[in-house]
Amino acid sequence: MLREQERLHSLVRRYQSPDEYPFFTDALQKPILQPLNYPKILYENDVNVNKKLKESYIQYVLPAACAKFDREERGDAQENYGSAAVCDVNCLQALSRRIHFGKFVAEAKFRKETERFVALIKAEDRKGIDEAITDSKVEKKVLERLRLKAKTYGTDPDNASQDPGKINVDAVVAMYKVFYP
Amino acid sequence: MLREQERLHSLVRRYQSPDEYPFFTDALQKPILQPLNYPKILYENDVNVNKKLKESYIQYVLPAACAKFDREERGDAQENYGSAAVCDVNCLQALSRRIHFGKFVAEAKFRKETERFVALIKAEDRKGIDEAITDSKVEKKVLERLRLKAKTYGTDPDNASQDPGKINVDAVVAMYKVFYP
Repeated sequence: MLREQERLHSLVRRYQSPDEYPFFTDALQKPILQPLNYPKILYENDVNVNKKLKESYIQYVLPAACAKFDREERGDAQENYGSAAVCDVNCLQALSRRIHFGKFVAEAKFRKETERFVALIKAEDRKGIDEAITDSKVEKKVLERLRLKAKTYGTDPDNASQDPGKINVDAVVAMYKVFYP
Repeated sequence: MLREQERLHSLVRRYQSPDEYPFFTDALQKPILQPLNYPKILYENDVNVNKKLKESYIQYVLPAACAKFDREERGDAQENYGSAAVCDVNCLQALSRRIHFGKFVAEAKFRKETERFVALIKAEDRKGIDEAITDSKVEKKVLERLRLKAKTYGTDPDNASQDPGKINVDAVVAMYKVFYP
């Protein structure tokens, strides 16, 4: 399903956009739209964490976000398998896009403090690079915003104060916050 | 794009669901999931208004919902053509689903007042049938709820009181309210 949707979206040049990363590179087709001139921002690289993302999504994210709602409260959700597959595809693509934004953040920070990063890279100081890239105040704000969005968009707006919400908001935040092994 | 996505979703039995109507019946494939036993609710029929829906969407809905945002304020939106196509497909499918729900409403009302409707049908009283099906109080409530949803989901939840919103809410309501010729 994911593979086939990527195949389809590649026709409208989705994976030519520098912030879109395919899970199935072998499925892509030649776009029917003319290529766009994106500014060349990132240093040449082949970082693509989608394989790991898909594994973590299946192993950790889905059980945390859905178990209580589907299996325990609503019984077998057999009739939702099709729609769930469609939603999973959209969800994985959104996560992938958001996670790969990190490349642009890293690039911007490298350009701002090139000397510092060159030294860290030469020393192969992975922990130091990680700390230099991470801005915990910004990160906290992003997660708070994510929580608000998950709550707002997962609640009946007609009855926001009463509605317990459709989704486990903590699990949504954890998708972005927790590094799964 | 729409045709190809329907082809893909037919694999997970989307168009076996009684509330899903394809735009391209010739594109559908045999599902890879086992068929579900949906209760047989509707009287045998071949009503499918998708052709007209697609025409109205292109001719009336899109210009009303998007013109001001894309063309006048943001200049040429060439680079959004691909993403716009993906959104249009989702939007058309959502509209189609919602509009065809009308069949279930009509069926429920027919069952509740069978004699009245049989008489109207025998008299070929189209206007009378229309009036008998329409509940203007319920319709008003549905449209109010739709307006609230369009506003809530089209606004930055972090800044809801200031944000002018991403979409023309009146145009969204009109999609469901106005009968386009």
